[in-house]
Amino acid sequence: MDMTAQTITVPAYAAPSAKAPLERTTIERRPVGASDVLIDIKYAGICHSDIHQARDGWGEGIFPMVPGHEIAGVVAEVGADVTKFKAGDRVGVGCMVDSCRACENCEAGLEQYCVKGNIQTYNALDKNGEPTHGGYSTRIVVDEAFTVRIPDGLSLDVAAPLLCAGITTYSPLAHWNAGPGKKVAVVGLGGLGHMAVKIAHAMGAEVTVLSQSLRKKDDGLKLGADHYYATSDDATFEELAGSLDLIVSTVSAPLPLDKYLGLLKTDGAFVNVGAPEEPVSLNVFSLMLQRKTLAGSAIGGIRQTQEMLDFCAEHGLGAEIELIRAEQINEAYERVLASDVRYRFVIDASTIAP
Amino acid sequence: MDMTAQTITVPAYAAPSAKAPLERTTIERRPVGASDVLIDIKYAGICHSDIHQARDGWGEGIFPMVPGHEIAGVVAEVGADVTKFKAGDRVGVGCMVDSCRACENCEAGLEQYCVKGNIQTYNALDKNGEPTHGGYSTRIVVDEAFTVRIPDGLSLDVAAPLLCAGITTYSPLAHWNAGPGKKVAVVGLGGLGHMAVKIAHAMGAEVTVLSQSLRKKDDGLKLGADHYYATSDDATFEELAGSLDLIVSTVSAPLPLDKYLGLLKTDGAFVNVGAPEEPVSLNVFSLMLQRKTLAGSAIGGIRQTQEMLDFCAEHGLGAEIELIRAEQINEAYERVLASDVRYRFVIDASTIAP
Repeated sequence: MDMTAQTITVPAYAAPSAKAPLERTTIERRPVGASDVLIDIKYAGICHSDIHQARDGWGEGIFPMVPGHEIAGVVAEVGADVTKFKAGDRVGVGCMVDSCRACENCEAGLEQYCVKGNIQTYNALDKNGEPTHGGYSTRIVVDEAFTVRIPDGLSLDVAAPLLCAGITTYSPLAHWNAGPGKKVAVVGLGGLGHMAVKIAHAMGAEVTVLSQSLRKKDDGLKLGADHYYATSDDATFEELAGSLDLIVSTVSAPLPLDKYLGLLKTDGAFVNVGAPEEPVSLNVFSLMLQRKTLAGSAIGGIRQTQEMLDFCAEHGLGAEIELIRAEQINEAYERVLASDVRYRFVIDASTIAP
Repeated sequence: MDMTAQTITVPAYAAPSAKAPLERTTIERRPVGASDVLIDIKYAGICHSDIHQARDGWGEGIFPMVPGHEIAGVVAEVGADVTKFKAGDRVGVGCMVDSCRACENCEAGLEQYCVKGNIQTYNALDKNGEPTHGGYSTRIVVDEAFTVRIPDGLSLDVAAPLLCAGITTYSPLAHWNAGPGKKVAVVGLGGLGHMAVKIAHAMGAEVTVLSQSLRKKDDGLKLGADHYYATSDDATFEELAGSLDLIVSTVSAPLPLDKYLGLLKTDGAFVNVGAPEEPVSLNVFSLMLQRKTLAGSAIGGIRQTQEMLDFCAEHGLGAEIELIRAEQINEAYERVLASDVRYRFVIDASTIAP
């Protein structure tokens, strides 16, 4: 990086400290390096984990913090060595902006599992020790290796949430072979869950939503679910016993796992993409007696993120969104916490500048 | 079955009731049906679960109970329709003697996961509603479909334990692809564990034993382990962090799973073949952050049991046994409970008759 080059001052929304509401500010982006892409951010999705981190739920948050790892925009400028992108290209950035690029996982395209730890899009330190800042801003500088292309068929606003909610659900659905002839259940119909339903349906699987109540049943069926059951009803667990190949749980509430594992067929998998803070408990016999697996999955690698975007474009899948102005971020946070969003808030980045 | 045919009276050792020691008795075997094989039992292994069931550890035990599901013997007589075996053949019987034979799992050779439940070799009711009785006896009548061949290269005494301890460990090692280039750990060096070490080593994996102490280290290395660590030493968990592809746990003590999951590489699996009675607890992040799986596995199907015996014969693998007389069964039970056996007690069936 040319350290004599000027940093770029950009408007942003930041949490100044752990408990404070987000407010308008400016941040510095690094100068555009040889392999960097300068992106004009058009839209940024609000992920539940943005709220968790902005409120320092895991501790050790870096403040001021500009959240946002569901970023869609247009390339404004590229570094001298950039080959994948040019100005005007439609691009996205997800949860990571770099990794070691040398470990066996990075070599395998699994940068999300980089053994040295990848660099998160915000609330992390970059290779120069500078804090990273996310998508609640008007511009971002990202290495081209961690930038993906948004195909023409996808509108940028509904594409933004794919960069986290899309890949987080696509990756396990692909890894555990959701497809024709497979019965897949999605636990929870929120930001992640609604994308899981759309993607699993597009993959050709028979899709069941397992939600606390039947409140969103009409939505679920419209999104592509074949069946919709309330988990508050014990009859659900009897009726579906031993019937499912794969369950993707998007919820962070601790679930009674033995009951859910009972829904799986032999060799079935229950995969967590949401996770409770507290430990979960289960009886090992729930796994042994039919060779079942309990697993977890986190986002997806860069190559697979591109594959997911191409898949979504091909099948016309975007997120269901509620577009908001930047001034509404704090209010949107409260509504996300109250599960009052169908299904993703997306910030119009043109409203971020004062 | 020809109901006019005579049942066969055979000497056996049985637990007369839940808390009583095993004693010499006689039981009735069904007449040899058209698809049945009458086997002269030569050896029967003592599995930890024999003790558990003979003492009614899970409740609902059927008494008197003749335990034993690690059976090796010689065919004495076959039914009219039997095609796989003839008198004089060396055969084995494991944990199951029948299943529905029609469900998708049975069709797939996964009779151990029969959706209607298979019929266990003892402590179960057969299709006629009669109690099944196991290998602590001199003869048994089993359908040829649930009888496997013991290859010539294997002595019957060391082959007997393969019918449970062998297949219980071979099946997950094969399913989760233990082999060259894979790092496999075995938790616990008992009846199951010592076979897991032998088999994983013969499959070409790099094998690590994780045992409470280093007491059996010399044995473990002789059995084929490349490394041997004490789990009582916290340094073990630091040194091996992120290094293993597969962990097969043969112990029934509840383990601190988050620590063990930390030993796995990305996409690694921790597979339980032993199981604690009480629920286990874990943090879902232990699975998510590197796409790990927690799984369970129970014995193996009939086809795979034959494959395992052929594999063991090819590689010269038998169990390490201590041969006992039938009168020593109760004493042997106490020694198993005290972990005082290297590594399997096998009953010489010629000592069962009075």
